[in-house]
Amino acid sequence: MRDGQNSDVVVVGGGLVGALVTCVLAKKGHHVRLYEYRSDMRVEVSRGVSIDLALSARGREALRQIDLEDAVVNHHGIAMKGRLLHSKDKGLKEILYDSVHKNCIYSVNRSHLNRLLLDAAEKYPNVNLFFNHKLMDIDLEEGHLQFVDVKSGETINTNAEFIIGADGAYSYIRRTMAKRPRFNCNQTYIDHGYVEVSFPVGPDNSFIMSKDHLHIWPRGEFMMIALPNEDGTFTGNVFAPFATFEALDTPEKLISFYKDQFPDALDLIGEKKLVSEFFQTSPKTLISIKCNPYNVGSRTLIIGDAAHAMVPFYAQGMNAGFEDVLVLSELLDFHNNSLSKAILNFTKVRCDDAHAICDLAMYNYLEMRDLVTKKSFLIRKHLDTILHWLFPNEWIPLYSTVTFSRMKYRDCIYNKDWQDRVLKKILICVGVTIFAYIITFMIATRN
Amino acid sequence: MRDGQNSDVVVVGGGLVGALVTCVLAKKGHHVRLYEYRSDMRVEVSRGVSIDLALSARGREALRQIDLEDAVVNHHGIAMKGRLLHSKDKGLKEILYDSVHKNCIYSVNRSHLNRLLLDAAEKYPNVNLFFNHKLMDIDLEEGHLQFVDVKSGETINTNAEFIIGADGAYSYIRRTMAKRPRFNCNQTYIDHGYVEVSFPVGPDNSFIMSKDHLHIWPRGEFMMIALPNEDGTFTGNVFAPFATFEALDTPEKLISFYKDQFPDALDLIGEKKLVSEFFQTSPKTLISIKCNPYNVGSRTLIIGDAAHAMVPFYAQGMNAGFEDVLVLSELLDFHNNSLSKAILNFTKVRCDDAHAICDLAMYNYLEMRDLVTKKSFLIRKHLDTILHWLFPNEWIPLYSTVTFSRMKYRDCIYNKDWQDRVLKKILICVGVTIFAYIITFMIATRN
Repeated sequence: MRDGQNSDVVVVGGGLVGALVTCVLAKKGHHVRLYEYRSDMRVEVSRGVSIDLALSARGREALRQIDLEDAVVNHHGIAMKGRLLHSKDKGLKEILYDSVHKNCIYSVNRSHLNRLLLDAAEKYPNVNLFFNHKLMDIDLEEGHLQFVDVKSGETINTNAEFIIGADGAYSYIRRTMAKRPRFNCNQTYIDHGYVEVSFPVGPDNSFIMSKDHLHIWPRGEFMMIALPNEDGTFTGNVFAPFATFEALDTPEKLISFYKDQFPDALDLIGEKKLVSEFFQTSPKTLISIKCNPYNVGSRTLIIGDAAHAMVPFYAQGMNAGFEDVLVLSELLDFHNNSLSKAILNFTKVRCDDAHAICDLAMYNYLEMRDLVTKKSFLIRKHLDTILHWLFPNEWIPLYSTVTFSRMKYRDCIYNKDWQDRVLKKILICVGVTIFAYIITFMIATRN
Repeated sequence: MRDGQNSDVVVVGGGLVGALVTCVLAKKGHHVRLYEYRSDMRVEVSRGVSIDLALSARGREALRQIDLEDAVVNHHGIAMKGRLLHSKDKGLKEILYDSVHKNCIYSVNRSHLNRLLLDAAEKYPNVNLFFNHKLMDIDLEEGHLQFVDVKSGETINTNAEFIIGADGAYSYIRRTMAKRPRFNCNQTYIDHGYVEVSFPVGPDNSFIMSKDHLHIWPRGEFMMIALPNEDGTFTGNVFAPFATFEALDTPEKLISFYKDQFPDALDLIGEKKLVSEFFQTSPKTLISIKCNPYNVGSRTLIIGDAAHAMVPFYAQGMNAGFEDVLVLSELLDFHNNSLSKAILNFTKVRCDDAHAICDLAMYNYLEMRDLVTKKSFLIRKHLDTILHWLFPNEWIPLYSTVTFSRMKYRDCIYNKDWQDRVLKKILICVGVTIFAYIITFMIATRN
């Protein structure tokens, strides 16, 4: 085996990003062994991460690489064309994501997508999948790995030419990297948690709310959202400060809270179902992780949540993880399929963008739960829409660059900053013109 | 044993803060077992952390609690009354730390101080010291600890009512806490490293530079500092970007660099000694760590570098760690010697201040290596001195509040912000007055 062709790669983590990178590397001719801690989800159902996924441009392009885009988007995704805001008096207000090009985001079931990706990986003859293998020890520089088979208790020692850590937000590989000098890492839990509550299917398997929208109940300090599922249900999530959840400690308080804040949702869910689901688990935490670098020499690399976990409010966690795989693939194309060169250059190419989307995701929580109800937000949104319609290639709003393009995340922020400056100048010009007009008018009328 | 008296405490880490907290808790009647990974430094000399310590008010007050202040300050500390800046043309410029009250900071040898503290700890009948004990596993909530005796290989399992983690910047206990939900942690290595170079003793054991100063060679992007030692030598440290060190890869380049940047230091050190010491080790890294919370329930607490490692540029690392022990001691006094209550309330009382000093330490690197040479810095310094002289209790400069008082670190920053606003207003008033004077003068002369 030589670097550049038929390299021997171990991927740690069989979630979405781990399964995808396995496919992409296998397609490029590398030999990939995928080790996953959990059992094979296609055989044994285990309770996984709950928040629904919203697939957008970056994720779609990655799936296209392994010919899965069509299967996911057109056969299993539910197109959402915009946000539908629910007010306290049960009023509805639609805010389209992209009224110019009519782009949509797609509600996708996480475990379904994961199964698809594992199936696709397994079809490559140069791929081996190992489930129930928990990583116990790793030598990041030498490429030694020690796993334990959690079913048999057997210890497995192995070596790899290259290691890709796609082992999620609580990555063992990142934690091992964090012990090395000059590894920077910032792990932040926000003061808000979330609780899942599902909306039932309607009569004749119909949807009880519009299935073409991401539903939001924005309430300032907290919010509820709901995404449609293929089976007609909606998965709802309440995001709120932990203190708010702690105060809702009885069914009576919860129902009174819903009557006050989300009355239409209460009608749809029903009191009994709400109480039973809400108190089933305690509120889950939300973590944001930024680190640097993503590689150890030219052998080991972390990608996806292992490298940059983010809060879910821009729906870019999976999309950014999938784009990591695209970036890696592009680096391999550039470097004649040399994994060592791709790994060595990955951090430089990707890290600033990953940090940018972590920041944007944090900001978008504020937008979703609070700003969307503000006049200033809606005026800006209209201005953006008009300008985007007039200059479709020159004036692209922030949400569109993030969600419907592959503009580098960092550049999405620069682009927004540039637009802010332009709008500010336009407003000043308009102000000065009006002022000049009034003065001229006053002088004219005086004479 | 009951909470409030004779509690059973395990302290992990026998460095400065671990040894001090052992003394303070023992003095309050608790039973303390101190476990240290290294061998007893009083018996076996091991190469420890190198940067000299500068003891100031917070550290002194902590030592006073166990009657060690006098021994350290008056018998082993070397008073430094200010900075002595060395320019490229061998010129010298003195900047006093406190020209009003003549307060000094004290250069102290780290291992000497550590030995003093271990001796003091050992004198308490309710203290047991265990060296060569490496922490292998810990249950933060239940208080189980597993050590391995690194000399015999024996495994030791033990329990503790309370655990104090004083196990330094690379704390195993903090890393274990970081795996828990809602533990925030930020670990940042700065892009600069440092290399130690010592200055020899002069004729008849004399000091070859002023022993009453902390010597600085500020050069913008990098700097050298030197602190006096009891034996007549100085410990010098060059701080610079890693890229700068990498470029100095031959003795010729190093000497040429010193001739250019630190010519007086080169004269004193000598080329041969410089080359031999400079290339002995590769540049060391500098880490800054902020985390939250410091406790796990009411059983486990981290203090000192384990909780808040900082870059060394405000000389507050040890002082802040010692003040942690003071804060813990004050909480114990307030809560009738109850360790559970003290541990439970420690984060709330201390965390913001610890984060503030981490930030200040980062800022002070800029001040030491660059700002001290700027006119604006010197003008502000003079203004501060005059105002501090006029209002000794009302106008206390930032450096003095941090170094010569126990004002909460957070308040030191607020205090500085308030002073900045006042000075800005004064400058505006002065500007307006001068402007009005000029206008009046022009009108007067025109008539």
